[in-house]
Amino acid sequence: MIVVMKIGSPEAEIARISSELETWGLTPEKIVGKHKVVIGLVGDTADLDPLQMEEISPWIEQVLRVEQPFKRASREFRHGEASEVAIPTPNGTVWIGEHHPVAVIAGPCSVENEEMIVETARRVKAAGAHFLRGGAYKPRTSPYAFQGHGESALGLLAAAREATGLGIITEVMDAVDIEKIAEVADVLQVGARNMHNFSLLKKIGCQDKPVLLKRGMSATIEEWVMAAEYILAAGNPNVILCERGIRTFDREYARNTLDLSAIPVLRSLTHLPIAIDPSHGTGRAEYVPAMSMAALAAGADALMIEVHPNPAKALSDGPQSLTPDRFDRLMTELSPIGTTIGRWHRSAAVMV
Amino acid sequence: MIVVMKIGSPEAEIARISSELETWGLTPEKIVGKHKVVIGLVGDTADLDPLQMEEISPWIEQVLRVEQPFKRASREFRHGEASEVAIPTPNGTVWIGEHHPVAVIAGPCSVENEEMIVETARRVKAAGAHFLRGGAYKPRTSPYAFQGHGESALGLLAAAREATGLGIITEVMDAVDIEKIAEVADVLQVGARNMHNFSLLKKIGCQDKPVLLKRGMSATIEEWVMAAEYILAAGNPNVILCERGIRTFDREYARNTLDLSAIPVLRSLTHLPIAIDPSHGTGRAEYVPAMSMAALAAGADALMIEVHPNPAKALSDGPQSLTPDRFDRLMTELSPIGTTIGRWHRSAAVMV
Amino acid sequence: MIVVMKIGSPEAEIARISSELETWGLTPEKIVGKHKVVIGLVGDTADLDPLQMEEISPWIEQVLRVEQPFKRASREFRHGEASEVAIPTPNGTVWIGEHHPVAVIAGPCSVENEEMIVETARRVKAAGAHFLRGGAYKPRTSPYAFQGHGESALGLLAAAREATGLGIITEVMDAVDIEKIAEVADVLQVGARNMHNFSLLKKIGCQDKPVLLKRGMSATIEEWVMAAEYILAAGNPNVILCERGIRTFDREYARNTLDLSAIPVLRSLTHLPIAIDPSHGTGRAEYVPAMSMAALAAGADALMIEVHPNPAKALSDGPQSLTPDRFDRLMTELSPIGTTIGRWHRSAAVMV
Amino acid sequence: MIVVMKIGSPEAEIARISSELETWGLTPEKIVGKHKVVIGLVGDTADLDPLQMEEISPWIEQVLRVEQPFKRASREFRHGEASEVAIPTPNGTVWIGEHHPVAVIAGPCSVENEEMIVETARRVKAAGAHFLRGGAYKPRTSPYAFQGHGESALGLLAAAREATGLGIITEVMDAVDIEKIAEVADVLQVGARNMHNFSLLKKIGCQDKPVLLKRGMSATIEEWVMAAEYILAAGNPNVILCERGIRTFDREYARNTLDLSAIPVLRSLTHLPIAIDPSHGTGRAEYVPAMSMAALAAGADALMIEVHPNPAKALSDGPQSLTPDRFDRLMTELSPIGTTIGRWHRSAAVMV
Repeated sequence: MIVVMKIGSPEAEIARISSELETWGLTPEKIVGKHKVVIGLVGDTADLDPLQMEEISPWIEQVLRVEQPFKRASREFRHGEASEVAIPTPNGTVWIGEHHPVAVIAGPCSVENEEMIVETARRVKAAGAHFLRGGAYKPRTSPYAFQGHGESALGLLAAAREATGLGIITEVMDAVDIEKIAEVADVLQVGARNMHNFSLLKKIGCQDKPVLLKRGMSATIEEWVMAAEYILAAGNPNVILCERGIRTFDREYARNTLDLSAIPVLRSLTHLPIAIDPSHGTGRAEYVPAMSMAALAAGADALMIEVHPNPAKALSDGPQSLTPDRFDRLMTELSPIGTTIGRWHRSAAVMV
Repeated sequence: MIVVMKIGSPEAEIARISSELETWGLTPEKIVGKHKVVIGLVGDTADLDPLQMEEISPWIEQVLRVEQPFKRASREFRHGEASEVAIPTPNGTVWIGEHHPVAVIAGPCSVENEEMIVETARRVKAAGAHFLRGGAYKPRTSPYAFQGHGESALGLLAAAREATGLGIITEVMDAVDIEKIAEVADVLQVGARNMHNFSLLKKIGCQDKPVLLKRGMSATIEEWVMAAEYILAAGNPNVILCERGIRTFDREYARNTLDLSAIPVLRSLTHLPIAIDPSHGTGRAEYVPAMSMAALAAGADALMIEVHPNPAKALSDGPQSLTPDRFDRLMTELSPIGTTIGRWHRSAAVMV
Repeated sequence: MIVVMKIGSPEAEIARISSELETWGLTPEKIVGKHKVVIGLVGDTADLDPLQMEEISPWIEQVLRVEQPFKRASREFRHGEASEVAIPTPNGTVWIGEHHPVAVIAGPCSVENEEMIVETARRVKAAGAHFLRGGAYKPRTSPYAFQGHGESALGLLAAAREATGLGIITEVMDAVDIEKIAEVADVLQVGARNMHNFSLLKKIGCQDKPVLLKRGMSATIEEWVMAAEYILAAGNPNVILCERGIRTFDREYARNTLDLSAIPVLRSLTHLPIAIDPSHGTGRAEYVPAMSMAALAAGADALMIEVHPNPAKALSDGPQSLTPDRFDRLMTELSPIGTTIGRWHRSAAVMV
Repeated sequence: MIVVMKIGSPEAEIARISSELETWGLTPEKIVGKHKVVIGLVGDTADLDPLQMEEISPWIEQVLRVEQPFKRASREFRHGEASEVAIPTPNGTVWIGEHHPVAVIAGPCSVENEEMIVETARRVKAAGAHFLRGGAYKPRTSPYAFQGHGESALGLLAAAREATGLGIITEVMDAVDIEKIAEVADVLQVGARNMHNFSLLKKIGCQDKPVLLKRGMSATIEEWVMAAEYILAAGNPNVILCERGIRTFDREYARNTLDLSAIPVLRSLTHLPIAIDPSHGTGRAEYVPAMSMAALAAGADALMIEVHPNPAKALSDGPQSLTPDRFDRLMTELSPIGTTIGRWHRSAAVMV
C-alpha cells in the first residue's frame, strides 16, 4: 500500500504516522518528492481498507492499494495455472475448466412437474448437454409470484437425474436447505441476489459439493471474486464463477447487459472456471443464440441455457427460455465454432 | 394490463388469445386501431408478468402493465394516508412517519467494546438522537475483514440501551439470529446486501419488531417497495424504508450516489415512512453534513448517521463516521431547518 | 398510444380529453375496465412525447407508447430487409452489411507521422484489413492532452490510402471540418462523445460520404438509433452503427462494458449494419482478442480494432492498441470462426 | 505518479524504465518492498496518462495517479478560496458563488412566443428569480420533435429582458451561433449532451460571457471539472457548474438521478460556483419542490427551475415544469430555509 501525504505535511506528522504503521506490523518507507511525500508500506496489507487508513491523519491525502484483496482465488495463488472442477455425475465425471471442452448446462427456470422436467432432461441430453438445471426454490421479486415447488421439486430433479444420468444444478436460497439440496444436486448454485449474502456463502463453503456462484447484478468483478474467496476460505475449493448479466441504464430490450469481457478479465485475475448464462444475461430467448455463440468464442468454460418444453406456459422466466427444438439447433450452430477453437466434446452426448 | 398485437395479426389469433386470457379469469376488451389491435385486460393482474404473457402468441408485440405490482405497500392501500411506525423505547415511544418530527438514529458501524458503545450512546443521546445504531453482525466484502463481535455485541447494545434509554437498531444477516437479536433490538435492520434475500424477508416478516429495510445497492424503487411487500405480506406492517446510496458509474469521490429523489417518489407511491442514511450514502464523513441537511429539507422521516468516538481506530467504516463533536455541531445545524419546516422535536434530547 | 386514466376519473374529464386529442388529429377509443378507463389513440403518434401528454389532465395516470419513435432506421421501413453500405475504395468497393463478409477496420488511435501511418496501413492490409482508421482530430478528456495533428494528419491519411489502397475512416469533431475531411476519408466517424451533438448529426446527414456512428457512452439503444435517424432524415442513408462499450458501475479492469447484445437487439430493430469496436469497448489490448472473437461469432458486420506499431510510444490510447504482430495473429484466429459462420472474405487481403 | 512493478521484475528492467522516465523529465525514486518494487515519480505528471505509461514495460503492474488532472479549476489553484461569477444584468449585477445569496434562474424549457416568454419572465421576477432561462435552440432526441424557434426566439428573449430587467441564460448547441446568442444572453449554457463536445468548449472559452456548464448525463465529477478546465484554459474564467441529474439503472419514476452529493464533493475539489437543476434532475414537476429544498439546504449557489405558464401546452419538457403559481409557492417555501442558512436575498425580488 502507498500512503500519499498532502503538500506541506509536517515532518513530525509523517514520523508519527510511520510509527503508528509500524505498530500495525508494517514497514513504512518514505519517498520525498518535489511536491509531496509518499510512504510505501511493506508487509501483509490484504486485510487493510485504504479509506480506513486515511483516517489516521488529516495530512493523508490518499491511500492506494497496490495488491489485490483476494488470495485463494487469485491466479497467483496457483502460480498462474487454471484450476478445474471435477463433477461426478451418473454419466461420468465432467470437468469444467480452461483446458477442458465447454460444459453445457440446460433446463428450465423452475421444476414444474415430473413429466416436464424428465422430458426436458431427455431433450437437452440428446442435444448434448451435460447438466440439467432447474429451480426448486425460486427468488422472485414479488411475494405473490410462484416461489418454486421447494422440497417436492427436489424429488423430481432426482427422477430426471436417474432417467438421464445428467448432473443436476439447482439453487440454494436459504442455508437451512443446503443439506437436503446437496442430497440431490451435483452442483449447488448461489444466485445473483444472494452473492452478497455472506452467511450463506460461509455455510456453502463448509460443505463439499461444487458451487456455481452467480455474479450479483451490480457486483464489480472484484466483489464477485471476493464472494468466491468467502467460499474458498471456508474450505470448499470447487467454485465456478457464472456471469449472468449486470444492471445498467439500458433495460428496454435486453433486461440485463451480459458482460462478456468478464471472461478475459477473470482469466487474468483468477484460476477459477468461468460460466456464462446468456438466458438471464439478456432476458429474451431471441437474443440467447447470438450471445451463446459469443460466449463460446470468447472462451467460456461452461454455458448455462434455459430450455423449457413450452415457454408460453412456464411458471417463471418463460420469455428467456428456448424450446427444445431451438436448443437442438443452437447446439448444432455452436458445435463448429467449439470444434474450431478445440473446446467441443467430440460426441457431446456421450461423456467419459 | 394491455396487450398490443403486431400489425397484421390474424383475427383468429386475436380470438384465440382472448379465449385463453378468459381462462385466466380476465375479461379482455378489444380496441381496433388504424394499424394495430390492442386488447385491454380487466381483472386482477397484479401477479402477472408482462414478459411472460408475451409468450402466449408470437403475434403479441408487447404487454404493458397499467397497475403497480405492489398492494399492501401502496399509498392507495391506505387510501392515500401515510402510515407511521410506533417504537417503544425505555425513553418512551418514538413515532416515525410523515406527520411526526424527524427521528435521529446515530452510532457506530460496529459495536467494538462496552466503553465505546456506551460512551457513543451517551454522546448521541445528549445531542438529541432517539436511537442508537451499532452492528453486531457485519456484512463485509472480504472474508478476512472484521465480521462483527456477534452475540457478545448484543449484550453491549443492551448495556447501552439500559444506560441511556435509547432504542436500539441493529442488523440481521442470518435468519437464525432473529430471535436473539429481537431480544435486544427495538428495530431490526435488513441491510442493502440482503434486500433481495427473500428467505430472510419472509422470516423477518413473521416476527413483531419493526423493520428498517435498506435499499439494495442497485435496486429500483419498485423492487425495493416489493421487498417491503414481502415483509408486509408475511404479517409485519411496521416497515421503514431506508435509502443508503445507489451504485452508479461515478464512485471516485462519493462511494455511492445518495438518491434523495427517492423521498418525493416514495411519498407518492407508498404510505411507509422514509429514512435516509447519508453516511453509507456518500461513504465520506466530510459529505455527511451537507447531505443530512438536504435529506431533512427534502422531507425525510428519519436520519441514520454514523458516529464513532475515534473514527481513525474504528474496526469498520471509520471514513464515513462523524466524531461526537462533529455530530453535536451537525444537530445544531439541522435544528433551525427542522424547526422551519415544523419537523424538529422541541427538545430533541427529551422525548415523550 | 394508450392513455391510462386514474381510478375515479370523471366522465366529463374523459370526454374533454378525448375532444382535445381529436383536435390533435388522433382518434381516441375508450375502453372501460373494472377499475380504470383506458383511451387508445389511433393515428400518427410518432412525434408525441408520452410525458408531455400526461400534462393534458391531472386525471391521466400514464401514457404508454405502443410504437417505436424511429421510422427510417426501423427494420419495418425496409420491410424486414437489412440494408448495406457500399464504400468505394482504391482497392474496390467494400460492402458492409448482414449479407456480406465481415469488414475489418484497423489502425492507430491517432495519426502521428507519415512513416507510422503508412507502415501501419501496410501491416493491417497485409493481415487482411479493409479499412485504415486513424484520428486527425481527437476528443480528449484533458485540454492539456494531445489533440491530434488536425489538418496535416489528413494529408498523411491520404498518403496511406494511396500507398495501400485501403479505405480511410476518420473522426469529425467539428462540422466546420466536414468538407476537408470528406476529401480524404471514405467513411466519416461520429465519436461517442458527439452522438448527442445534434447540430453535427444534421450537418453530416447533409453530405454524401457514409457515416460510422458510435454509440454514446450512456446512450440507450433507442437514443442511438434516434441519432442515426437524424442522419437518415437529413438525407444520408449510409449509416453504420458502432458499439464501443457503455459506461457502467465497474470500470476497474475493462474501462467500458462492451455490450455485444446490441448485435441481436439492433438486428431485430433496424436494417442498418452493425460494427463493434472491442478496443475502446474494453480499453485494454489484452482483452481485445477475446472480444473480437465474440463479436464475430455474435454476428457483427464489421470490426474496428486499434493497431499501433509501438503502443508504448503512442500519443493516445496506446494501452488498448494491438501491435501489428498481435493483430496478424488475431486475424489468423478470427479466420476459422469467420469461415465457419460463412462471413470471412475468402482472401481477406485481396478484395474485389 | 507511482509505478508498481510486478513481482519478480528483473533489476535491469527496473533500471531501463527509470532511465526512460528520466528522458521524460521525471525523477524516479525506487522503493524496494517485501514482494514488490515501486517507483515514485517526481515532476510534472498532470499530462500523463497512467494506462499509457503501463505500456512502457510488460513488467509494470499498475501506474497510479497521485495528483488531480485539473489545474485552473482546482481549489488549490485559488489557494482554497471560492471564486464567484459576477453577471451584469439590467437590474444590476448578480453574483453567483459560495459567499453570496442563492441565485434563482427560472423559465420555460423553450421560448414559444413573445407573450408566453414575457409573461413568464414577469411572473418569475415577481416571485424573486434573478435570471430567465429559455431555449432558442433545443437538443431533442428525435429529429421530428420541436427543435426550438432558433434565431427568432433570441429576439423574444431580448424583449423579455427589456421588459423585466432579468438576466438571460440560454443554450448554445452550435459554435456558429455563439456570437448572435451572446448579443442577447447574459450567460451561455452548454447542455449536458454537449459537455463532451470539446470543439464547442474551446470556442465558448474564447469569448467573454459567463458559461453555465451542465454535467453530462454520465460524466464523472472529474470529467465534468475537466470540461470546465477546457473553458478556463481557453481564457474564460467565468464558469458555473450545473448538476442536472445523472443516468442510472432506475429511470421509472424520476427520469434521472439528481446527484446532490456533487455539492460537497465539488466544494472540496474546485473553486467554481455550483448550480442545481432539479427540473431536469428529476423530470417530473411533482418532485421539483422537494429537490429544490434539498439543494438549497445542501449549499447550492444557484437553482435552475423550469416554469411554464401552461405546462400541458408546452412544446417541450412540460412534465417537469412548474406553473407560475406553484413556483410562487416554492419560493415562499424556500425563503425560510434560505434565510436560516444565511443565503437568501433579503428581498429577492429587488436585487442590488
